[in-house]
Amino acid sequence: MIPEKQDLLDAYKAVKPWIHRTPVLTSSQIDQMVGASVFFKCENFQKMGAFKMRGALNAIQSLSEAQKKGGVVTHSSGNFGQALALAAQKLGWKAYVVMPKNAPTVKREAVKGYGAEVILCESTLEAREATSQSIVNDKGAAFLHPSNQMEVILGNATATLELLVDHPDLDAIVAPVGGGGLLAGTALATHYFGNHCKVMGAEPIQVNDAFRSLQSGKIEANDCTDTIADGLRTHLGDQNFPIIQKLVDRIICVEEAEIISGMKLIWERMKLVVEPSSAVALAAVLRDKANFQDRKVGIIISGGNVDVSNLPF
Amino acid sequence: MIPEKQDLLDAYKAVKPWIHRTPVLTSSQIDQMVGASVFFKCENFQKMGAFKMRGALNAIQSLSEAQKKGGVVTHSSGNFGQALALAAQKLGWKAYVVMPKNAPTVKREAVKGYGAEVILCESTLEAREATSQSIVNDKGAAFLHPSNQMEVILGNATATLELLVDHPDLDAIVAPVGGGGLLAGTALATHYFGNHCKVMGAEPIQVNDAFRSLQSGKIEANDCTDTIADGLRTHLGDQNFPIIQKLVDRIICVEEAEIISGMKLIWERMKLVVEPSSAVALAAVLRDKANFQDRKVGIIISGGNVDVSNLPF
Repeated sequence: MIPEKQDLLDAYKAVKPWIHRTPVLTSSQIDQMVGASVFFKCENFQKMGAFKMRGALNAIQSLSEAQKKGGVVTHSSGNFGQALALAAQKLGWKAYVVMPKNAPTVKREAVKGYGAEVILCESTLEAREATSQSIVNDKGAAFLHPSNQMEVILGNATATLELLVDHPDLDAIVAPVGGGGLLAGTALATHYFGNHCKVMGAEPIQVNDAFRSLQSGKIEANDCTDTIADGLRTHLGDQNFPIIQKLVDRIICVEEAEIISGMKLIWERMKLVVEPSSAVALAAVLRDKANFQDRKVGIIISGGNVDVSNLPF
Repeated sequence: MIPEKQDLLDAYKAVKPWIHRTPVLTSSQIDQMVGASVFFKCENFQKMGAFKMRGALNAIQSLSEAQKKGGVVTHSSGNFGQALALAAQKLGWKAYVVMPKNAPTVKREAVKGYGAEVILCESTLEAREATSQSIVNDKGAAFLHPSNQMEVILGNATATLELLVDHPDLDAIVAPVGGGGLLAGTALATHYFGNHCKVMGAEPIQVNDAFRSLQSGKIEANDCTDTIADGLRTHLGDQNFPIIQKLVDRIICVEEAEIISGMKLIWERMKLVVEPSSAVALAAVLRDKANFQDRKVGIIISGGNVDVSNLPF
C-alpha cells in the first residue's frame, strides 16, 4: 500500500529538470527562541511559489502519452491550480482548472497567466466535483487531485528528499497539514531517507481534522474553515491518510494568534515572504519547543503566495 | 587617494569571519520583464538585515587596541546604528549610538538589543554631530561615520567582491545611493574585481543629490527628504564622492511610484522582504532597461529592515 523507495527516486528523476533546488535557510535568532537548530526548506522560492509544483509535475508525467490529447483537470482555488497550469504549460499539456466563482480575480488571472483554461462553478464541493467530472467526460481530461493522489504525494515528497540530502542528520521534520498531500510526502521521504527522524504535522486548531482523524482512526471533517491558513482548510483523503497514520509521529495544533506571530517572525527575522500555512509549522515548533530542545529540526516552508497588500499584521 | 586592491582584500579578511556569505538569487519573471539576466546580491539576509554590518565590522577592526577602552560612537537612526551596535558586541567593544528623539521606539530597542548605549538628541544634523562629539570628548570614543569613512566604504565593498566572485562576467552592477558609502564600495570592488563591468547608482528623484553632484562636480545637498527610501535621504561626503566621480558610470533616478512597484515586485515574485532603498536599484534597471538588454546585471539588495505592519502597498 505504501510506495517503495524506488517510487520516490523515480518521482525525483521526473521533477528534477523542471524545478528549483530550493535553499535551506537558518536563523540564529529563531534557533535561540526555540532552543534548537531549525532548518527551513524554502519552497516559497519554488517555481510558482509553492511545493505544489513538484506534485503537479510528477502527476502529469505519470500519465500515458495517449492521455495527452485530453489534457488534465483539477479543482483548486489555491496553489495547486496554478501549479498544474504551469506544470502543464512546461510539459506541453492542456490544463483545465475548476475554480469557485468567488475566487479572487488575482488567483484566476494567475492560472490563466500560466496558460490554463479556468472553468468557474458554484462554491460547493459538489459543484467543484461535478464540474471537474464534466470536463473529464467532455474533453477526455485526466483528473488530478490537489492532495489525495499518490503521484502528487510522491512529487511533494521530493522537497523533503532534497532537505535530507542537505541535512541527513535531522531529528525531526515538521510540515503543515491541510489536505495531507504534503505531510504524507514528507513522511514517506523521511521514512526512506531519514536517520531516526520523526515527522510531525502542524495544523491550525480551528481546522484540526488531521489531529482528530489520527485519534479516531478514520478521516474526520472540519466544522468550519475559519483559519487564516487558507491552504490548510481541506481534509485528509484515502490515499494520504494511511501513510500519515503509519508514518507520522503526531500532529501539533496551534492557535490563530500563534500562526500570525510565527509568520511575522519569519518575515522580520528571515526576510522571507511566506504564506500563513507555512508559518503554522514554525508556530508548532515554538509551541512544542520543550520537545525539540537541542535537536535538529527541519521545517517545510510550503509557499509564499500571499496578498502582500492584505496582511494580518 | 583611491584605496588599493590589497585594502579591499584586507577588509574582506577582517569581515569574513563575522558575516554571512549572502546568496545571489535570480527570477526568470524579472529577467523577462527587464530583458536581461539580473543577479540579486541579497544583503537583506546579512546579519542585522543589511550590508551595513560589513562596513561597521571593518571600521571597528581598523581601530587600534588602545582605542578599545573608549569604544565607538556613531549617529544614525537607521541600519548603521544597529550594525555598529552588533559589530561592537561581537568584537567586544563598547558602542554609543546617537539617535534623534523622534526615532521610532522599535529602532531604539533594536540598537539596545544589540548591547549599545543609545543617546537621544534633537532631530537636527547639528545636534547629532554635537552630541557625537561630546561622546568622543567625554568617553574617548572613536567616531565612525555611517557612510563617509574609508574603512566603512571598504567593508561595504566586500558585498560586491563576493558577487563578482560568484558572477565574474557581470556587465553592470547597480547599487542604491544615499550617503554614498555603498555605491563607492561597489565601484571600488568592481574596479578591481570586475571584467569590463560598469557601475551605476540608483537614486530617488526626490533626493537626487548624487545625480546633481556628478553633474556639478561638487557635493550638492537635498532640498527635501521626501522619499519612501528612508536609507537614501542623506548626501555624499568628501571620502566617497571622489571615488564615485572617478568610478561610477552614471546615476539613474526613479520616481516614488517606481520604487513602490519595484518593491512589490521583489516581494511578490522573489518572496523576499526588502526595504524601499533596495527596490530603488531594481526600479532603476526597469526604468533604464533599454540600456541593459541581453546584459548580465548585478543588483545590490541593500537590506530588509522594514516595518512589515506599515507597507506602502
